[in-house]
Amino acid sequence: MDKQRSAFFISDRTGLTAESLGRSLLSQFEGIVFDKITLPFLDSVDKARDAVARINETAIKDGQRPIVFSTLTLPAVLSIIEQSDALILDLFEMFIVPLETELGQLSSHAVGRSHAAGANYSARMDAVNYALNHDDGGISKELHSADVILVGVSRCGKTPTSLYLALQFGVYAANYPLVAEDFSSNALPPALKALKSKIFGLTIQPERLQQIRSERSPNSRYASLDNCRFEIQQAESLMRQSGVTCLDVTTMSVEEIATTVLFQAGLKR
Amino acid sequence: MDKQRSAFFISDRTGLTAESLGRSLLSQFEGIVFDKITLPFLDSVDKARDAVARINETAIKDGQRPIVFSTLTLPAVLSIIEQSDALILDLFEMFIVPLETELGQLSSHAVGRSHAAGANYSARMDAVNYALNHDDGGISKELHSADVILVGVSRCGKTPTSLYLALQFGVYAANYPLVAEDFSSNALPPALKALKSKIFGLTIQPERLQQIRSERSPNSRYASLDNCRFEIQQAESLMRQSGVTCLDVTTMSVEEIATTVLFQAGLKR
Repeated sequence: MDKQRSAFFISDRTGLTAESLGRSLLSQFEGIVFDKITLPFLDSVDKARDAVARINETAIKDGQRPIVFSTLTLPAVLSIIEQSDALILDLFEMFIVPLETELGQLSSHAVGRSHAAGANYSARMDAVNYALNHDDGGISKELHSADVILVGVSRCGKTPTSLYLALQFGVYAANYPLVAEDFSSNALPPALKALKSKIFGLTIQPERLQQIRSERSPNSRYASLDNCRFEIQQAESLMRQSGVTCLDVTTMSVEEIATTVLFQAGLKR
Repeated sequence: MDKQRSAFFISDRTGLTAESLGRSLLSQFEGIVFDKITLPFLDSVDKARDAVARINETAIKDGQRPIVFSTLTLPAVLSIIEQSDALILDLFEMFIVPLETELGQLSSHAVGRSHAAGANYSARMDAVNYALNHDDGGISKELHSADVILVGVSRCGKTPTSLYLALQFGVYAANYPLVAEDFSSNALPPALKALKSKIFGLTIQPERLQQIRSERSPNSRYASLDNCRFEIQQAESLMRQSGVTCLDVTTMSVEEIATTVLFQAGLKR
C-alpha cells in the first residue's frame, strides 16, 4: 500500500507559486500519496493561528507531521506558522537573503505583487478576447494581428492552448481547424496563405484523438479510429507540404504545449 | 535612474514554476529593472552549454553577473549551469534534500511531471469546453452542472475568470451577465433562481469599468461613467437583495480573482 502524507501550500496571496513548486517537488517521491491542502490569503496573525491549528490537527490525525510549502512574505505571519508541528519549507525566506546580498538592498517584504492588475491585466484580457473571437477559424479578417495561428484537426488541443497563451502570456493566438476541404486541396486554408510565418501546427496520435473525441461523441464516425487516422495523416502531410512546424502533443499538458509553442515560435513571454 | 540587472528562469520543463517564484521574489526589490529571460526545456548537456554561453554573454554585457532561478531536476544539467558566471538559486536542489530526509526516501530526480497529461488533462479540457459553452449566459439548461456561476455587469472580468478556473483548476464555471431586465425586476435572471448556492458575484469600481469598456467602445453610452455607475449600483443592489456574495475585483489580477472565488466558494482545487 502507498504511504500517505499531508502537504500544505500556504501564502499571503494566491498560493499558486507555492502549489506549483510544491507539487513539482512532491511528484519526485514515488509511492507516497500526498493529501494536498492550499491555504491562500494568510495575511494576518489571526489567519496564521487558524492555519497552525489546522496543520497541527492534521499532524495528530496522520500521526506524522505535514510538509508545509510557504511563500509568506510577512515576517509576523511566518513566525507564527513556524510554531506549527510541520516541516516548513519557506520558498521566500530561503532566497530573499541571497538576493538582498547580491542586489545590495533590502527587500520590501511586501505582499507578493507579481500578479498585479494594471497594464499587464489589460493586455492579457485583450488577448483572451482575441482568442475567443479567433477560435475555430472565427473572424478571418483580423488574423494578421495574431502573434501565432494554431492549426490542426478538431480536438487536438488548439482552443485550450490559445486560451492559455492569452491568459498566461498575453499572446494573441488564433486557431484554425484543418478540415476535409483542406485535405482535398492538400493546402492550407485560403485565409491563412499569406500568414505562413505565423502558423504553428499541432498533431496527436490517432489513439489519443479517438479517446478525446469519443468522450464527446461516442460511437460516431467522427471519433472512430479509422477517421482519426485518416484526418491526422492528411493534416500532417498538408503541414509537411506547406513547411509548417508541427508539434506532437499526445503526452503534453496545456502548459507544456503553450510554452513549447512560445519557445519554438520565438515569441516573447 | 533605475538600476538594471538580468534574470534567467531555467528549467528542464516549462519554466513556469521558476518564472513564477522568480518574478515574485524580484518584485520585492524596488528601483531595480530586471531584464527577464526564460530558457525552458534544458534537458540535455548540449542545451545546458548553450545556456551557460548565453548567461556569460549577458554577464559581460551587463558588467554584472545575472541571477538564475532554476528548477532543473537533472543533476548533469545543473552541474553545467553551476559553472556559469551567475548567482544560481536552485529551487529544486534547495528543497529536495530536506524532503528526502523527511520522507525517508530518495527522490527520483526525474524531469518534472507536475503538469503531466492524462486524467487531469481531460478534466481540465472538459472544464474549458464547459466554460466556453456557458460563457455570457449560454446554454442555460446545463447550468445545474456548474461548480460556480459568476454573475456581474458586462466586462467586469467574468469570462477570463471562468476560463482561468477551468484551465488551472478544472472547475466548471459558467458566467451570466446582469442586464437591464434584471435591474428592472431587481432579481436574479430567471434561469439562475434555483441555483442560488452556486452563484458568486463580481463587481468593480465604475472608473475602472469605464476604462475597460472604453478600450473597446470609446465614447459610447455603454462605456460612459454615468452608465457604468448606474449598472454597478443596480447590480450590487440586486446581489445584496438576493443574498449573493460579491467580490470587488478592481485591483485584482485574474489569478487573484479565480483563487479568491475558489476559496470563498469552498471549491476543491
